[in-house]
Amino acid sequence: MPPTVPLDPLHDPLHDRLHDPERRGFASDNYAGVHPEVLDALAVANGGHVGSYGADPYTEALQEVVRRHFGERASCWPTFNGTGANVVALSAMTDRWDAVICSSHAHIHTDECGAPEKVAGIKVVDVESPDGRLTPALIDREAYGFGFEHHAQPRVVSVTQSTEVGTLYTPDQLREVCEHAHALGMLVHLDGARIANAAAALGCSLGDITTDVGVDVVSLGGTKAGLMGVEAVVVINPDAVRRMEFVRKLSTQLSSKMRFMSAQLLALYSGDLWLESGRHANGMARRLGEALRGIGGVTVTQEVAANAVFATLPPQVTLRMQARYPFYVWKEATGEVRLMCSWDTTEADVTGFADALAAEMGAEGSAP
Amino acid sequence: MPPTVPLDPLHDPLHDRLHDPERRGFASDNYAGVHPEVLDALAVANGGHVGSYGADPYTEALQEVVRRHFGERASCWPTFNGTGANVVALSAMTDRWDAVICSSHAHIHTDECGAPEKVAGIKVVDVESPDGRLTPALIDREAYGFGFEHHAQPRVVSVTQSTEVGTLYTPDQLREVCEHAHALGMLVHLDGARIANAAAALGCSLGDITTDVGVDVVSLGGTKAGLMGVEAVVVINPDAVRRMEFVRKLSTQLSSKMRFMSAQLLALYSGDLWLESGRHANGMARRLGEALRGIGGVTVTQEVAANAVFATLPPQVTLRMQARYPFYVWKEATGEVRLMCSWDTTEADVTGFADALAAEMGAEGSAP
Amino acid sequence: MPPTVPLDPLHDPLHDRLHDPERRGFASDNYAGVHPEVLDALAVANGGHVGSYGADPYTEALQEVVRRHFGERASCWPTFNGTGANVVALSAMTDRWDAVICSSHAHIHTDECGAPEKVAGIKVVDVESPDGRLTPALIDREAYGFGFEHHAQPRVVSVTQSTEVGTLYTPDQLREVCEHAHALGMLVHLDGARIANAAAALGCSLGDITTDVGVDVVSLGGTKAGLMGVEAVVVINPDAVRRMEFVRKLSTQLSSKMRFMSAQLLALYSGDLWLESGRHANGMARRLGEALRGIGGVTVTQEVAANAVFATLPPQVTLRMQARYPFYVWKEATGEVRLMCSWDTTEADVTGFADALAAEMGAEGSAP
Amino acid sequence: MPPTVPLDPLHDPLHDRLHDPERRGFASDNYAGVHPEVLDALAVANGGHVGSYGADPYTEALQEVVRRHFGERASCWPTFNGTGANVVALSAMTDRWDAVICSSHAHIHTDECGAPEKVAGIKVVDVESPDGRLTPALIDREAYGFGFEHHAQPRVVSVTQSTEVGTLYTPDQLREVCEHAHALGMLVHLDGARIANAAAALGCSLGDITTDVGVDVVSLGGTKAGLMGVEAVVVINPDAVRRMEFVRKLSTQLSSKMRFMSAQLLALYSGDLWLESGRHANGMARRLGEALRGIGGVTVTQEVAANAVFATLPPQVTLRMQARYPFYVWKEATGEVRLMCSWDTTEADVTGFADALAAEMGAEGSAP
Repeated sequence: MPPTVPLDPLHDPLHDRLHDPERRGFASDNYAGVHPEVLDALAVANGGHVGSYGADPYTEALQEVVRRHFGERASCWPTFNGTGANVVALSAMTDRWDAVICSSHAHIHTDECGAPEKVAGIKVVDVESPDGRLTPALIDREAYGFGFEHHAQPRVVSVTQSTEVGTLYTPDQLREVCEHAHALGMLVHLDGARIANAAAALGCSLGDITTDVGVDVVSLGGTKAGLMGVEAVVVINPDAVRRMEFVRKLSTQLSSKMRFMSAQLLALYSGDLWLESGRHANGMARRLGEALRGIGGVTVTQEVAANAVFATLPPQVTLRMQARYPFYVWKEATGEVRLMCSWDTTEADVTGFADALAAEMGAEGSAP
Repeated sequence: MPPTVPLDPLHDPLHDRLHDPERRGFASDNYAGVHPEVLDALAVANGGHVGSYGADPYTEALQEVVRRHFGERASCWPTFNGTGANVVALSAMTDRWDAVICSSHAHIHTDECGAPEKVAGIKVVDVESPDGRLTPALIDREAYGFGFEHHAQPRVVSVTQSTEVGTLYTPDQLREVCEHAHALGMLVHLDGARIANAAAALGCSLGDITTDVGVDVVSLGGTKAGLMGVEAVVVINPDAVRRMEFVRKLSTQLSSKMRFMSAQLLALYSGDLWLESGRHANGMARRLGEALRGIGGVTVTQEVAANAVFATLPPQVTLRMQARYPFYVWKEATGEVRLMCSWDTTEADVTGFADALAAEMGAEGSAP
Repeated sequence: MPPTVPLDPLHDPLHDRLHDPERRGFASDNYAGVHPEVLDALAVANGGHVGSYGADPYTEALQEVVRRHFGERASCWPTFNGTGANVVALSAMTDRWDAVICSSHAHIHTDECGAPEKVAGIKVVDVESPDGRLTPALIDREAYGFGFEHHAQPRVVSVTQSTEVGTLYTPDQLREVCEHAHALGMLVHLDGARIANAAAALGCSLGDITTDVGVDVVSLGGTKAGLMGVEAVVVINPDAVRRMEFVRKLSTQLSSKMRFMSAQLLALYSGDLWLESGRHANGMARRLGEALRGIGGVTVTQEVAANAVFATLPPQVTLRMQARYPFYVWKEATGEVRLMCSWDTTEADVTGFADALAAEMGAEGSAP
Repeated sequence: MPPTVPLDPLHDPLHDRLHDPERRGFASDNYAGVHPEVLDALAVANGGHVGSYGADPYTEALQEVVRRHFGERASCWPTFNGTGANVVALSAMTDRWDAVICSSHAHIHTDECGAPEKVAGIKVVDVESPDGRLTPALIDREAYGFGFEHHAQPRVVSVTQSTEVGTLYTPDQLREVCEHAHALGMLVHLDGARIANAAAALGCSLGDITTDVGVDVVSLGGTKAGLMGVEAVVVINPDAVRRMEFVRKLSTQLSSKMRFMSAQLLALYSGDLWLESGRHANGMARRLGEALRGIGGVTVTQEVAANAVFATLPPQVTLRMQARYPFYVWKEATGEVRLMCSWDTTEADVTGFADALAAEMGAEGSAP
């Protein structure tokens, strides 16, 4: 007889919550949970059998939704996470000998443990960019050596929208980058982990800042906008990639029960949930930035364009605040911190944080 | 004002189901959906903010659960899918110059588009094995050239339990493999995508067929047992791997909102759900195998040890049956098909399939 | 003042020989030195300045010579060694998702420390082949799964001529392989580390066993035929590769002072030196094989088709013979040894070895 | 009967020179040929059979010579070229998750077609450095994120001596870099393609600028100092690497007839030839720099520390001069050119060039 595993169950995960659902902070938009509509969509997609690995009606419907956003030639390739989307996108856009140019802040350069190099052998070349944006002039610093066998061939310009430091490209700025890249025979990848925040902030459709300005391939965000854990590669220009199906699979990014990934993306992008999510997080950040600007001794260091607020605080204040609202120090040296708002940030969170910070700063200021 | 995306919504994914939840088949255990308890566990884990990338109470609890199954030195590293788990496990177990020996049927050899080679540069060496099992003698066919600089160094033996052709290793057979590998200075990886089926079929605990027989690292299945999409690397022997945290990240397998992955694994492994799931699927397969053996002209080609039934059918019968119950042809040449049962296969599914097949075979038999 | 390095010189490498130039054996054709004509050619190519990295008149002349052997579309890409030639060739012929099918004896599979996998991520799939040759039927055992995203895509068939076990493909056998591969949409690579021996043995031109039978790309041997250390990738069919210049460079196989590599290849292939070298080594092997067949207790185990003789000897005899004539044991289990002849093997070497072996076997035979 | 290859020989490569041995220029030290003593050493090492792949007396003697230069723990691993040496060295010093920090001018970053990334998956992170040198402060710009799983782990600082822009590190500057790197838990690699020039210019022994200042691993130059085509990895600190023998082989950098590579390195490093070669080239560069400084309208842009002279010329003058003396434009935008002297540059070359340039500049100056 099969044994009963002798577990004295640690807990009953079906009914016992292991965390405090009332606790929120400003650490990252991936500290947040899942939008309730997304959980509902997962339940709807459940039950019975459907084809695996994307041969299901949810993934099919997703193609149609993506075409509406990104144009008739677009296709959508769900992946598990942002690093996966970026690696799949860049692999499919490059040959063995190619290089990708990005800003010095790019997630692909600083925060993927070298996955593009290590998984796909892609040379990533960064250009110093204080505000996280590339320009034609910055691209030109590394876009050379075409045809020279000693030099990894610049093939892709990768931009992030909104950027890792919370700034935005205007559509015109993106168009300039795309036109410049294309004139050099290069392609453009857009890391859109926070594209919903960008579009909401700019008052643009998703196509306005991608397809219409010449972007070839997008890493389409989902998780940070309220999904459980799905991103996607959106191929706008099919001539920019080769054999997506193989590249996704060999990059370990092919999901078997893909219906649940596509259902999440449908929940976000078939209606306006992406826009609401982005708009809400941006609004909270704007409000937070305004509140911080009103507190003596606090300096807001970057324009609050999307859902991030960068500010400098005294280190001891930072420590005390982190105990109540988790958030990250961005630069130890200057005391700059990053405060991220998400789809579930509340006005009470913002007010509570600002009030507490004002109190701490006041106490600090009056210290001997 | 931010525009409303001009979508004439294809559908309302929150309320409109795009598939027939009553339809099931025998194509694969990943055609099935998610066990209801798992959906519940996701809802429980939702709400509020918790640390990302594994710094959350669900992932912490998961460590304790895994230690109860796999021993005090064990640790659990959730990954997105089986290919991801295998690549992370094998990467962490090998150096640049190493090779992995597996059976000719191994998923890592035939069904991962070369991910171990392409993502991690691992040389995969297969040994012909008709029943999917390795033995010391089979391992010895490729375990040579130790220390010889011209030869990729055999470092890991990878076995699958239950195997890709539905067979099982007994604990003694696994122990023999592990002892042999260790005597050669090699390590043992067990691909346990269907370990729940294996343990249930053998009447063993998970530790009985891993830790207790000497396995070093396990790819722990989840998706095929009723989860939405989670597997994990379980490191039983910490000396067998190096820097799991980096390897998982650079292999694109680190989840941001990991609480939802860990919550799934908790739902499966903190209690007996894994066992019920495996036992149920096995039972349905056994029943299906028995039914098929009773149908004239149908030959069951492998012992029905876990949740797979292999049988030969006339091609035209296969085609007609597939229209009603999706399943795959395993070998075109011989007409062998594979019928997989899953956690949600019902007795009615089995009876319905068997009756329909009997009718088809009868019609076939009485044909001129 | 720059110091004099305080070396008590170990020796004067310009005049003191550190080895016995009279000593020869049967260990490998790369134990031999350099043909005197090759040293002369190096001296001729020396002096003054010429373009580096192949922009020199010797490399240009080499193109013409290679076209004469391999046809008007052929080009020649010198590399440093055989592993380098194979890796460059196979990389240029494959995409990230591809696989290469070869025999179980193939150098790329057993003797390159996994370089194809580790440098280029190529999945190498071997087929058991006792005599080292592939046939259409053997290829078909692994040539499946075309278009299936889960399966590394079979793209290249790699054959070795003469094979690693000293056997030969006839032109018709090669043509069969090529036609079969091409019918499958695959390409053919020929590892020709010993192509000179093969052509000499078959009474064929180099084109007869490559271009004329449909081979797409050749790893052209040089070192084993009397060069100091040069091989080359010969691209017969330019449609079979992409961007050779980048692939060679990124694979670390681009020589700066390439004139000296091309000069060596010119010395070998612009006239008949390759043919003389191959014919001579083959002749010595044939003679050695005949002599061994006449010695009681010695069994010649493979047809002596090129420059290798395989035979079984008693282990203690092997040990005593190795002390006088270095050679390698091929299979410990059976006592099979490999005896390689090279461009500089003499009749006296062969006679001396055979006489010594006969004496040892006689002593052995008369032992109690 | 084996056919005679129907070649109407293009030429007789044994007696017909295809180039003008009197022509020299200032393009690169690898446009030069081979020092006569090196050719002699190759002839001495020829004849008879010796062990392949390094099991020969020349490679053994080389170990002793290298220990005299680099200390008792040093070992020498010949490779074919500089890219090969760098890739082998860096691969052996890093794990899958590591990164290498170098200057923006580093050969490994700009001139190896991404080989470190593509062959070995190493993340190469460059720091802007106008004069090609790294300092502790520059290293600190990228040496962060230790232990953070999202960040490729800084593991090696790679410096070049003399640098790619002709500058030098003093021993103290190197010591500072090494001490800083070691304090961070990092290792130091020195790309010494032109280490002979550096040591000669500094009046240092090879050990003075490597072992004695804390360098762990050196890519030891040979080709640019007058060899035919050999570099080597010198492992000074054996704890800094793992399994060099496998790494060299799998990186396609293991030579079969290694005696000829080791004989070259012996010719250069067992006596003072390396020093003479470096000193001569440096002297010619100094002389050339002085001559250029005396020509109106020509600006020497970098200190002439080793064997490179950087200067700005009017573009039309550059074009006319290149027709007579090949050399490269370094920066199109500014008209900066690079003039390299080598072991075989003559005073007549320098005088001839300077006189011709003076005449061109004069003609230019007097133009309407």
